Amino acid sequence: MLDVALQYANAQRDTFLTELKEFLAIPSVSALPDHKPNMQRGAQWLVDQFTTIGLRHAKINPTSGHPIVTAEWLEAGPDKPTVLIYGHYDVQPVDPLELWHSDPFKAEVRDNYLYGRGTSDDKGQLFIYPKVLESFLKTSGRLPVNVKLLIEGEEEIGGPSLDAFIEQHQNELKADVAVISDTAMLRPDLPCLVYALRGLCYVQVEVSGPARDLHSGQYGGAIYNPIQALCEMLASLKDRGGHITLPGFYDKVLPLSDAERQLLAQSPFSDAEFKQDAGVIGVWGEAGYTIKEQVTARPTLEINGIWGGFTGEGPKTVLPAKAYAKISCRLVANQDHLEIAELLQAHLEKIAPPQVSVEVKRLHGGRGALINLDSKYMRAAAKVLQEVFGNAPVYEREGGSIPVVATFQKVLGIDSMMMGYGLPDDGLHSPNERFYLPNFYNGIEATIRYFDEIGK
Amino acid sequence: MLDVALQYANAQRDTFLTELKEFLAIPSVSALPDHKPNMQRGAQWLVDQFTTIGLRHAKINPTSGHPIVTAEWLEAGPDKPTVLIYGHYDVQPVDPLELWHSDPFKAEVRDNYLYGRGTSDDKGQLFIYPKVLESFLKTSGRLPVNVKLLIEGEEEIGGPSLDAFIEQHQNELKADVAVISDTAMLRPDLPCLVYALRGLCYVQVEVSGPARDLHSGQYGGAIYNPIQALCEMLASLKDRGGHITLPGFYDKVLPLSDAERQLLAQSPFSDAEFKQDAGVIGVWGEAGYTIKEQVTARPTLEINGIWGGFTGEGPKTVLPAKAYAKISCRLVANQDHLEIAELLQAHLEKIAPPQVSVEVKRLHGGRGALINLDSKYMRAAAKVLQEVFGNAPVYEREGGSIPVVATFQKVLGIDSMMMGYGLPDDGLHSPNERFYLPNFYNGIEATIRYFDEIGK
Repeated sequence: MLDVALQYANAQRDTFLTELKEFLAIPSVSALPDHKPNMQRGAQWLVDQFTTIGLRHAKINPTSGHPIVTAEWLEAGPDKPTVLIYGHYDVQPVDPLELWHSDPFKAEVRDNYLYGRGTSDDKGQLFIYPKVLESFLKTSGRLPVNVKLLIEGEEEIGGPSLDAFIEQHQNELKADVAVISDTAMLRPDLPCLVYALRGLCYVQVEVSGPARDLHSGQYGGAIYNPIQALCEMLASLKDRGGHITLPGFYDKVLPLSDAERQLLAQSPFSDAEFKQDAGVIGVWGEAGYTIKEQVTARPTLEINGIWGGFTGEGPKTVLPAKAYAKISCRLVANQDHLEIAELLQAHLEKIAPPQVSVEVKRLHGGRGALINLDSKYMRAAAKVLQEVFGNAPVYEREGGSIPVVATFQKVLGIDSMMMGYGLPDDGLHSPNERFYLPNFYNGIEATIRYFDEIGK
Repeated sequence: MLDVALQYANAQRDTFLTELKEFLAIPSVSALPDHKPNMQRGAQWLVDQFTTIGLRHAKINPTSGHPIVTAEWLEAGPDKPTVLIYGHYDVQPVDPLELWHSDPFKAEVRDNYLYGRGTSDDKGQLFIYPKVLESFLKTSGRLPVNVKLLIEGEEEIGGPSLDAFIEQHQNELKADVAVISDTAMLRPDLPCLVYALRGLCYVQVEVSGPARDLHSGQYGGAIYNPIQALCEMLASLKDRGGHITLPGFYDKVLPLSDAERQLLAQSPFSDAEFKQDAGVIGVWGEAGYTIKEQVTARPTLEINGIWGGFTGEGPKTVLPAKAYAKISCRLVANQDHLEIAELLQAHLEKIAPPQVSVEVKRLHGGRGALINLDSKYMRAAAKVLQEVFGNAPVYEREGGSIPVVATFQKVLGIDSMMMGYGLPDDGLHSPNERFYLPNFYNGIEATIRYFDEIGK
């Protein structure tokens, strides 16, 4: 059963790539209201795909936001484990478009990389699963495990639909383990198993000064410019040592143990490569922690966007009515995203100059998670990754957030195996996002082997 | 000659308004490259207007930027003074368009106000002059003074063409006095003669961090976010007492004399009205100075715009490559705009964190000016303003900048009479810019009387 599936997958490589390109061509940008019809198209494409390869009950589940796609195949027998496969078909916006070297929605292969929005995050990685299931079903007519698929369309906007859906359908979604491919390996030959994820708290700040935009030559000097106020507030959120000065921010952070700091130090992470990959003159982070610790094991606060006043070409002497910023915090174990949002809100309101008013809106929040390293599902994952990539996987804390992992733990009581096939320089959320094509095929092989292994 | 001109102007009010609306309908936005053809249309419209009313040699003078319109009528005789009339036919951009209650380029009268872009700044005020000249020429066939008209299209962008044009045509532009209507009265019954203008230094700051936009979950915490750097730099430019902390900024500022502070204190300026008009919770400015002093006699530094990262709807976890701001300083006597630009540039480069790079571009610069209060042209201006509006004019320092006044002093050796007919709440550069219609007609009457007076 294993061998014929692997042979099939190998023979179908070109077809798989052609199909993936078709999936990538649907601009399913969840953040932009104009793309709502494309979200529907993306969901329908998946339903058709799942039906075609032989899954049961493939369907679109409408939500108050973007639809969730589900399907299943439960005929492996009650003695076989049930695997819950999660992924997301929504993608990030593509701006700034002018920095793309090819159309973000016409995926293009250059030098063994597939370029396009969603190639790595997450359509390309998600598409591994139907191709794995097809490889078994078309050759043996069955799967070595039972599977349930849960594919959402609001991952990039932290939409509320998925959590509610999982709560409401916890019986239908019951499984023994979840698998998710939405993370990165360290090198093309060095796989990685993520065992910890940071939480996320994302807010938007609106500072209001004058009732309307004013002429800066007539009013400037006697009005608290909301941009000035916003800059002062944001500047005060970190000290020169990179520590976040929001009172209470670190209160619930668990200190990193020496053992864990050693584990992180052993990870093949290069400060020089990090710096080069980011393209910065120098790095800068929280004093007392290594870069690796800063980007994975420590909480952060970043300004994701800022705007206000005249931003067009040339000079315009305006003193604006409003200024805005988007701020997000990555949170580590025991920090609660709701609590941090409250702290942030209260603090920003407190430090705002009395001549302006401040409104803080919560745009997104998600819990972090910590996975048991010593389970049969984790050991099997390590085994197949080593077989396919030649090296034992590194166990990693991940800087980004995959909130569903925490929800699966809390609601379904299961751990998620984060077997990711991206690479660190895939350019997620950036122009020229890409996916290393050999990882697409190796991901399919590793997953075929994984299902075979846990189904033994 | 005076009476028939006044009668004519009075009888033609409706026609004058219809013509002004036609002028206002040309969207001559100098800052936006797309509007270049409209700048040409605006200039041509003026040439046609000047020719129609009987001026000589009306023509478009091409420049490297937007055209300058000139015309003249020099047949009053060598014993009569020559008046140089200056105005600008370019207008500010109209964004945010959604805040306008009517189309900015379809001027509309509501409650005695004419609403539309350029109604007050400066097309509406500029248009007073051809209507004055027409009123004389159509009734007496001649003018009481010689006139030269110089109408530019780069005032709102501080374009370089006008200064160069005045330098190159100083003989053709030779005159005894200049008149400009591009300022405001204090109330509909309280005229104002501006005798001092602040200079302007306008720069754009670009802070560069990573080579591309990064995922804030993967890189945040170890990279100096350029928005963070920009906020820190901008926040540090003022202390909590509203003093500008740019080293050397105040070095050449002449202290306000007690006499001048008394003159300013006598001006019918209401702090409460200022606050209400601006629509702020509270005012805030340089400690130790009154609001009136802050907005007219003291130098200022304002952030006119800021942008960077993701500014669309929803959350996007980006750590941006770049962040930008526009900053302008209003300068008072003896401050040099080139020197201040250099100070600003050097200081911003110095205070930038070493992990980012900074580029400061100069977008605009202009000198300030101080006008002799005791000339026959100033006295005549005071006389006619009192006749028309019922109150003696207040002598004012103006917060905004009209760089051409300094150029007229330096190159042509003449003072400018700034007889402005705007009102403080005209909303210049803002949505719903307006012009108080009685001031349009009273401005025409005052100017007819002024030319008659100085031509006696």
